[in-house]
Amino acid sequence: MKGNIVVGQSGGPTAVINSSVAGVFAGAKALGVEKIYGMVHGIEGFLEDKLVELHPYLDDETGIELLKRTPSAFLGSCRFKMPKIEGHEDVYEKVFEIMEKHDIECLFYAGGNDSMDTVKMLSDYAAAHNKPQRFVGVPKTIDNDLPITDHCPGYGSAAKYIATSLKEIIRDNESFGAKKPTVCIVEIMGRNAGWLTAAAALAKGDDCSGCDAIYLPEKVFDINVFTAKVKELSETKSSVVIAVSEGVKIADGRYVCELANENVAVDAFGHKQMSGTAAYLAQIIAAETGLKTRAVEFSTLQRAATHIASLTDINEAFQCGKDAVKAAEEGKTGVMITLDRIVEDPYCCGTSAYDIHAIANVERAVPDEWITEDGCGLNDGYEKYARPLIQGELTPLYVNGTPRHLVMAELFD
Amino acid sequence: MKGNIVVGQSGGPTAVINSSVAGVFAGAKALGVEKIYGMVHGIEGFLEDKLVELHPYLDDETGIELLKRTPSAFLGSCRFKMPKIEGHEDVYEKVFEIMEKHDIECLFYAGGNDSMDTVKMLSDYAAAHNKPQRFVGVPKTIDNDLPITDHCPGYGSAAKYIATSLKEIIRDNESFGAKKPTVCIVEIMGRNAGWLTAAAALAKGDDCSGCDAIYLPEKVFDINVFTAKVKELSETKSSVVIAVSEGVKIADGRYVCELANENVAVDAFGHKQMSGTAAYLAQIIAAETGLKTRAVEFSTLQRAATHIASLTDINEAFQCGKDAVKAAEEGKTGVMITLDRIVEDPYCCGTSAYDIHAIANVERAVPDEWITEDGCGLNDGYEKYARPLIQGELTPLYVNGTPRHLVMAELFD
Repeated sequence: MKGNIVVGQSGGPTAVINSSVAGVFAGAKALGVEKIYGMVHGIEGFLEDKLVELHPYLDDETGIELLKRTPSAFLGSCRFKMPKIEGHEDVYEKVFEIMEKHDIECLFYAGGNDSMDTVKMLSDYAAAHNKPQRFVGVPKTIDNDLPITDHCPGYGSAAKYIATSLKEIIRDNESFGAKKPTVCIVEIMGRNAGWLTAAAALAKGDDCSGCDAIYLPEKVFDINVFTAKVKELSETKSSVVIAVSEGVKIADGRYVCELANENVAVDAFGHKQMSGTAAYLAQIIAAETGLKTRAVEFSTLQRAATHIASLTDINEAFQCGKDAVKAAEEGKTGVMITLDRIVEDPYCCGTSAYDIHAIANVERAVPDEWITEDGCGLNDGYEKYARPLIQGELTPLYVNGTPRHLVMAELFD
Repeated sequence: MKGNIVVGQSGGPTAVINSSVAGVFAGAKALGVEKIYGMVHGIEGFLEDKLVELHPYLDDETGIELLKRTPSAFLGSCRFKMPKIEGHEDVYEKVFEIMEKHDIECLFYAGGNDSMDTVKMLSDYAAAHNKPQRFVGVPKTIDNDLPITDHCPGYGSAAKYIATSLKEIIRDNESFGAKKPTVCIVEIMGRNAGWLTAAAALAKGDDCSGCDAIYLPEKVFDINVFTAKVKELSETKSSVVIAVSEGVKIADGRYVCELANENVAVDAFGHKQMSGTAAYLAQIIAAETGLKTRAVEFSTLQRAATHIASLTDINEAFQCGKDAVKAAEEGKTGVMITLDRIVEDPYCCGTSAYDIHAIANVERAVPDEWITEDGCGLNDGYEKYARPLIQGELTPLYVNGTPRHLVMAELFD
């Protein structure tokens, strides 16, 4: 590669999105790329020419190790959607102008569905206008809903956080051996796809009986059936812990969280605030059964808890970044790196570079064959798929009692 | 010690209450005590003669190490308050009858304020009726509100969880460098004392600017002053993260969470459900400022996240258990083990056995001199007090991707 490169982060952060930046940096450095830039706040910042040279932060290998242990988006993120090309050629020309100004040959973008759309639009524009610059997507989303790829970097760590935290919550809930159980309802992220909620199944093991029921958004949620299930469980168990997706909907298509509170259903930007599902269901259970209830929302920590990230996930995120550079070096553009499971047991994943048009804006749900017949559990198919993704740990560097993070000063200018 | 001993756990679990059981076991084993019993579900189970011999679980040192890494109450907990002696002599006689039946010379009880009341009542009864059995309290509470002792086992680990999680949340919230900041409000446990919420101050460090404001229940909460503060912060900052105690009250004495939702303010047992404070305040901020808001509740995880427990806390909890046995061996009864800070820097703590009458039912608040003048921050006095308590880690034993716990089969009989 003769020119420079730039890497950006976009969308909701994950515990390992910084490992992908580390991978891009390592791959480009190995190729002798002179200048490796980071976009400050993704493509939105890039359009304002906000670039940072990454060498001062990452040339020392300690920097790379610290970056792997840093949650959220080291470079800053954005939620900027590229406009359609027609009528907005100026926005696209601006991207290429800035790339030319800094002699940037390849742009790498780590993100989920929306971000892959950015990669698609930019590579399409380049193709249509005979521009030589190349664009490669690096998968990233705790939601695990990108198609083609076996799974998405970020998912394994979120799943590990969910499984670990649920084990701790289940033990806590079990400790009071009351005649009547406490019903604990745990709300897990995932607006449309139930991948994260499915990870609740991973709490189960030799030392933990697991969740008593798991409700994914892939299935219609029936409040009466749910209440009956809790009543049935509470007759025989001294503890009931239930995992429920924030995205569960009743038959008429309304989210359960919308039933919870019409007033807070829409935030200042017009997005539905997916929150309050567990609290609402706990209130119904308390009223209907008189049982003690507790509602827990894992919230932001699902995507931010790098202190308990999966080493498998960190390594794969790094590999995706590195192989994105390799794909660009081979002349590829308009592709996203996918993870391909080569061997089931012992688990082994490779990567490919796949046409971005098959990926951008497509959402993948949890396959129906992995959901138990009663609609509130996961079977062995999911266990086999997901268990390898949460293996291994990368010990944080603790300083003064908390994990140390790498901070980019330019983010606060 | 010629007879046997029994140890029980009571009240809300902590990340290290099992380390205290491990300490009692180790201390008693070293003295050659023949039978070391655990109460199944505290004094409530004990009154039903539910005892377990701990040797099969803990004779192997691996069992001790696993127990230190196990959250919640290994023996099961309870929320049983001993009745007043007058008119309930039968309950007290029952305790002594069971102790005699199993040749139990000393009873150790790990818990907070209510549990120390149990130790007081039993030792008072023994004294009044010339009974030879001895009763020693082992401090335990994430709330850190027991008097006399410098701090309480359980607090350091909860504080470490809070500081670590807040750092991760702050980094997440900072990653979107919008023109207008997202306001994230984090709700932390502590009905009356602000110790846990104060731990939000420990998020601050070289790599983190910390929370923008911290509201303790020790100060009257004024919603207008709060809103003005958030408005002021949002004018200059690209991210605003605020920690607020679940126990904050407005001037007329009502909890903020009561304003949030009158319908769910009381649970099935008549307790006020301390939940929803952050969501309520986030809703007010969104309505008043149009800013994007997010509400996070740390909930149960504050007391259950043993995977990130403080090693200092684990060691001190163990020491308190061990020294409780020592105190009993020396003939002491009606005492609780206290932690005494001997040296400030380098931090060093010893223990004493203190008269339980000065401890039971007394709550200690965060000292006024550690709260900043504006009422929404902590000063260096708190930092010096609390920072040593979160030092060190004990790596979990990961099996199949999640931390392995020690489970007592009898809890599920």
